[in-house]
Amino acid sequence: MLADLDLERVRSAAERIEPHVVRTPLLTARPNADCELLLKPESLQPTGAFKLRGAVNKLSTLPGDCPGVVAHSSGNHAQAVAQAARLFGLPAVIVMPNDAPATKRGPTEAAGAEVVVVGPDSDERADRARQLAGERGWTPVEPYDDLEVAAGQGTCALEILEDADSLDRFYAPVGGGGLMAGCAVVMKALCPAAEIIGCEPEDAGDTRLSLEAGKRCAIPPPRTLADGLRVRRPGELTFPVLKKNVDRIELVSDEEMLDAMAWALKTLRLVIEPSGAAALALALREGRGRCGVILSGGNVDPALLQDVAARAALLG
Amino acid sequence: MLADLDLERVRSAAERIEPHVVRTPLLTARPNADCELLLKPESLQPTGAFKLRGAVNKLSTLPGDCPGVVAHSSGNHAQAVAQAARLFGLPAVIVMPNDAPATKRGPTEAAGAEVVVVGPDSDERADRARQLAGERGWTPVEPYDDLEVAAGQGTCALEILEDADSLDRFYAPVGGGGLMAGCAVVMKALCPAAEIIGCEPEDAGDTRLSLEAGKRCAIPPPRTLADGLRVRRPGELTFPVLKKNVDRIELVSDEEMLDAMAWALKTLRLVIEPSGAAALALALREGRGRCGVILSGGNVDPALLQDVAARAALLG
Repeated sequence: MLADLDLERVRSAAERIEPHVVRTPLLTARPNADCELLLKPESLQPTGAFKLRGAVNKLSTLPGDCPGVVAHSSGNHAQAVAQAARLFGLPAVIVMPNDAPATKRGPTEAAGAEVVVVGPDSDERADRARQLAGERGWTPVEPYDDLEVAAGQGTCALEILEDADSLDRFYAPVGGGGLMAGCAVVMKALCPAAEIIGCEPEDAGDTRLSLEAGKRCAIPPPRTLADGLRVRRPGELTFPVLKKNVDRIELVSDEEMLDAMAWALKTLRLVIEPSGAAALALALREGRGRCGVILSGGNVDPALLQDVAARAALLG
Repeated sequence: MLADLDLERVRSAAERIEPHVVRTPLLTARPNADCELLLKPESLQPTGAFKLRGAVNKLSTLPGDCPGVVAHSSGNHAQAVAQAARLFGLPAVIVMPNDAPATKRGPTEAAGAEVVVVGPDSDERADRARQLAGERGWTPVEPYDDLEVAAGQGTCALEILEDADSLDRFYAPVGGGGLMAGCAVVMKALCPAAEIIGCEPEDAGDTRLSLEAGKRCAIPPPRTLADGLRVRRPGELTFPVLKKNVDRIELVSDEEMLDAMAWALKTLRLVIEPSGAAALALALREGRGRCGVILSGGNVDPALLQDVAARAALLG
C-alpha cells in the first residue's frame, strides 16, 4: 500500500474533488524580515476544514452499490463525511466523542448524518465505528488510515506548489497523519529541497515519539485544546509514509496555538481553530525562510473565539 | 469617459493586476432553502480590501517618469495605494481622516507612505490631496472617480462570473461607486439577467438619493460605523455608470451590518468590517435567489471585533 501513495494518486484525487471543494487561495504574510509565510486557509472549505478533500475523494471511488458509509471523528472528518455522503446520495453514520465542540457536531447532523456519541477516547470511537460497519454492511471511511483519504488531503500541497514555485519549509499539523502523508509525498516529488516539518500538541506527540522509536507507539489520551489532534498513535498506513518523508516533528503548547489563533484573526482576518493553528504556531516560533503552512481548519466554539478576540486586541 | 468603462477595460485590468493580488475564492452559504449566497471575500487581499485591485491597476498604467502618487482615503484605499506604490517603487503621500481606525492607518505607514491627517469630512481630505498633488507635481490616485481604479475594482465581478456561471442577483456596497461601477459593467455584459443591487448605510444614502433625483446630490457628513462608506456624494465618473446599470440601492442599518459581521465570523470564519458587511446584510435581509455578494474588506478595530465575537456567540 505504501508504494501506492504517490504524486499520481494525489493528482487523480485533485481531478475528482475539483468540482466539490474550494480552491483555497495562498495568502502571504511576513512576520519578520527573514520569513515569508505562504498560508493555505483550509478553514474556507464549506465544512471549515481540509477533511472534505479526503472524504470526497474516498466516496467518489466507492462502488455504485455501496449501501452507506460509517466514520469516526472528533469533528472535522465527521462533517466532511456527512457532507460528502450528501453529495453522493449515501446514508452516513458518524461516531463522535462526547467532548466534540457543538460547532462540529451540529453541522454533521444538519448535513443529514446519524450521529452516535461515545467517550472522548479515539480508540473507543474507532471500535464502535468498526462494529457499526459490520452490523450494517456499510463502508468505513477512515479519518486518516486510508490511501484515498490521504491522497485527497495531499491536494492541499499540490495547490500550494501550483501557487508558489518553491518553498524552504513545509509545515502541517499531524494527528493521525493523513494530511501530512498526502502532502509529504507531493512535497518530496515536486519540491525535494524543502524541509518537511510536522507539528503536534505537547501532550499529543505520538508521532514524534514513534519516529524516535522507529515504530508506532501509543500515548495516553491527550487533553490538548486542539481537539482535532487528540490521536493516541500514528496510522498504520500513514506512519511509514511519515517515517520516510518527514524531516522532523516539533511540539507546540496550547498557549502557542491560542497566540497563533489571535495572530491569524488580527493579521489574516481568519478564524482558525486550535488544531488549525498548530503549524502556524510553529512557523511563527521558528520564523525563518519561505514557508508553506497549512491552516487546517476553522471550527471554533464561540466562547473560545471570544477569548481569542480578546487576545488579538492585546497584540501590538 | 463613460463609454470607456467597459468589459474590455476590466479584462485588461485583470491581466495587469493578476501577479499582485489574491485570486479570492467564491464561498457558498445557504442562509435558507430559497437562497444561495456566493460570497467574494476581498478581506483576504494582502491589504484586507478590494481597493488593492484598483490601486495596482492605476499605478501600472502611470508613465515611467511619474515622480510619486497622492491619495485620500478613509483607510482601505490608503493602504492599497501605499502597498501599490511600494510594488512599483514610487513615493506616496496619503491624506486620511482623524477618525480612521488604527487598523487602517498603521499599515499605511508601515508600507512606507507618508500620512497626512485631516478632519473626518470626505470633502476636506479630497481638497488637501489636490493641494498636495499640485505642490509636489505628483499624480493623484482617486479612490473611485478614476477609470482605471474603477476598472480594477470590476475584476471582482469578473472573477465571480468565472467561478459561478450565472446569478439572479448581484450585491455590492456603494461608497463613491468605484467598486459598483466596475462590477456593474461586467455584470451587464456577461450576466445581463442578474439584478444589480447597491447597498448604502442608512445615513450615507447619497447614491440612492441621487438616483431618485436623477442627478448627483450631496448629503451631510455621515456618522455610520461603516467608515469605508462615509461618502457625501457619488463620483462624477461613477454616477452615470451606476445610473445606467444599477437596478436599485437599498439602505442598511449599523445594527444590520454588525449582525452580518457576526454571521460571517460564525458561518464563514471570516473577519469582515462594517463596510464589508453592508452587501451581506442586505442579501441576508432579502434572502432569495442565487446571489453574488462582495465582502469588500476586513479591517476592523480590535475592540469592535470583540463585540462582534460576543454577538456571534449569541447566534443560534
